Amino acid sequence: MSDRVRVVQFGAGPIGISCLKTVLSKPSHIELVGVIDIDPLKVGKDVGDILGLPEKTGIIVSADANAVLSATKPDVVLHTTSSFLARMYDQLILCASHGANVVSSTEELAYPYHRHPSISVELDRVAKENGVTLLGTGVNPGYAMDALALMATGVCNSVKSITVNREVNAGLRRLPLQQKVGAGITETLFAEKKATGMFGHIGLVESIRMIADGMGWTITRIEEQLDPVVSKKQVVTPYLTVEKGQVAGIHHHAYGYDGEELLITLDLKMFVGAENPRDEVVAESDPPMNLLVKGGIFGDTATVATLINNIPLVMESAPGLKTAKDIPLLRAFGTR
Amino acid sequence: MSDRVRVVQFGAGPIGISCLKTVLSKPSHIELVGVIDIDPLKVGKDVGDILGLPEKTGIIVSADANAVLSATKPDVVLHTTSSFLARMYDQLILCASHGANVVSSTEELAYPYHRHPSISVELDRVAKENGVTLLGTGVNPGYAMDALALMATGVCNSVKSITVNREVNAGLRRLPLQQKVGAGITETLFAEKKATGMFGHIGLVESIRMIADGMGWTITRIEEQLDPVVSKKQVVTPYLTVEKGQVAGIHHHAYGYDGEELLITLDLKMFVGAENPRDEVVAESDPPMNLLVKGGIFGDTATVATLINNIPLVMESAPGLKTAKDIPLLRAFGTR
Repeated sequence: MSDRVRVVQFGAGPIGISCLKTVLSKPSHIELVGVIDIDPLKVGKDVGDILGLPEKTGIIVSADANAVLSATKPDVVLHTTSSFLARMYDQLILCASHGANVVSSTEELAYPYHRHPSISVELDRVAKENGVTLLGTGVNPGYAMDALALMATGVCNSVKSITVNREVNAGLRRLPLQQKVGAGITETLFAEKKATGMFGHIGLVESIRMIADGMGWTITRIEEQLDPVVSKKQVVTPYLTVEKGQVAGIHHHAYGYDGEELLITLDLKMFVGAENPRDEVVAESDPPMNLLVKGGIFGDTATVATLINNIPLVMESAPGLKTAKDIPLLRAFGTR
Repeated sequence: MSDRVRVVQFGAGPIGISCLKTVLSKPSHIELVGVIDIDPLKVGKDVGDILGLPEKTGIIVSADANAVLSATKPDVVLHTTSSFLARMYDQLILCASHGANVVSSTEELAYPYHRHPSISVELDRVAKENGVTLLGTGVNPGYAMDALALMATGVCNSVKSITVNREVNAGLRRLPLQQKVGAGITETLFAEKKATGMFGHIGLVESIRMIADGMGWTITRIEEQLDPVVSKKQVVTPYLTVEKGQVAGIHHHAYGYDGEELLITLDLKMFVGAENPRDEVVAESDPPMNLLVKGGIFGDTATVATLINNIPLVMESAPGLKTAKDIPLLRAFGTR
């Protein structure tokens, strides 16, 4: 079919592999034309073999991003290589210079303007020069704790404050997520990991900045705190066991102030044994707004969905560096 | 302030009056520059007098739309004159020809392409010629039963069907809404009103079409049904009393099929005495999605909010005829 979107997958780690499976499940809408990854165990192999499919796809993983982009000229690149922008924004520039729109899972790209102002200016300039859209998004940041909160206020005349509560039962998620939140470790080890500054969720600050920008609010100070959730009982998951008194996961919370006025509260709990998993937006507003996603948004599969569902939206957006609040209304893509 | 949005209110009926109150409550963000209405009781009067304000605003209601638009050159027109497009699309063309973006409460404009294809082509052409955006929206259609449902699917990889349930306690709403849903009339009178074809909610078909378009789904058949909700007990509202056995309100439901496959179900109940008011989106999807607005979106004030919150979005959108699914993410405007 000639109206299929030509897509390159850039990064074939766990999220990239999930993206590839979903991309290949939508053959009427998406044509996979290339895969880029630097892992020596994957380079040179057919994507079908990497995914464990019964048949080969004819798409060979390559470490040469420039060669893949030159040869395939994709409409959109699905980019899943890193959480951190400074490490890889040259990858985004390379995609843009080949005329490809990008949807990236990079958490820091979900709202990059504050943490990386000069990189943001550069990315926006290159995107506009090449007539493409660059977007960082995902479930969180990108949807559950920012875009959905903004959308909820769309029917409000006045809003004094916004609170978002996300509680995830990590016991239902894949092992890397359980490990990422520290399930089964001691409080002492949690404190050590926390001290490295590389532990916990990435994106609460980005989400606060996106909400504030969307609302036209000034934020003068952000406070962020990471605490362990200590398990009150033994919890057994398919992958591991958390004993009573061990760490079950993280409680990561952040607060956006204008002066002494608390405007935005983001409260994220991800732990095994969570009994009330949900996504909840509560606005102190007129009319009042209390929006609930029952059971919560299931991150493992939903993150991939968010990336793929943005494919048509980056194609129809005006060129430039965008965030979830700038593009047309998100919805599922390629479902029939 | 020079960066305030210059707004003309076109239509000063009940919704228009509510818009004016909210517009005047946001003086740091919006400058009211003109009001158009044909009601002889309003023409020539100061808006302050019409709203019962202690002071005059200096804005006089005029019946001469062309003169007001010529003199004021607004950035955006808030348009609230009719539910039906064929009666007044010349008003939209007039606004566009004066270079004004339009946010309209006209229900048929929320998704006009199917019911009014030629008018839609004309409106899109004129909007693009004049570099402006024309948008019809509101709470319903425009948000609760279409845009919010689309947004909910944004984190889903596959979607088989979408159901939206909206239940409104009309007893908490203004008298015209209670009368609009037939509260307190007999079932016989309800049947007579229904037979006129001018009774019930306007917009379910538009909402189905918008969802289908957003999802890329083909709809071959729409079924729509209007039933009375008969009260099981006496209900007293501040405005009227519904006896047991009388009509309490409407149950308006619509179904979108592709062949024999039911894809979209919209179920709207608006009646006095509703005990579980809510807005609910349930997608048969992977991952599953069940989104709930507790207590429901309060239509009287929320409709006005939706119109005003779209002001900055029509200004930044690419020119043309747009619907709620085409513009950047809705959020509250001018709240601080």
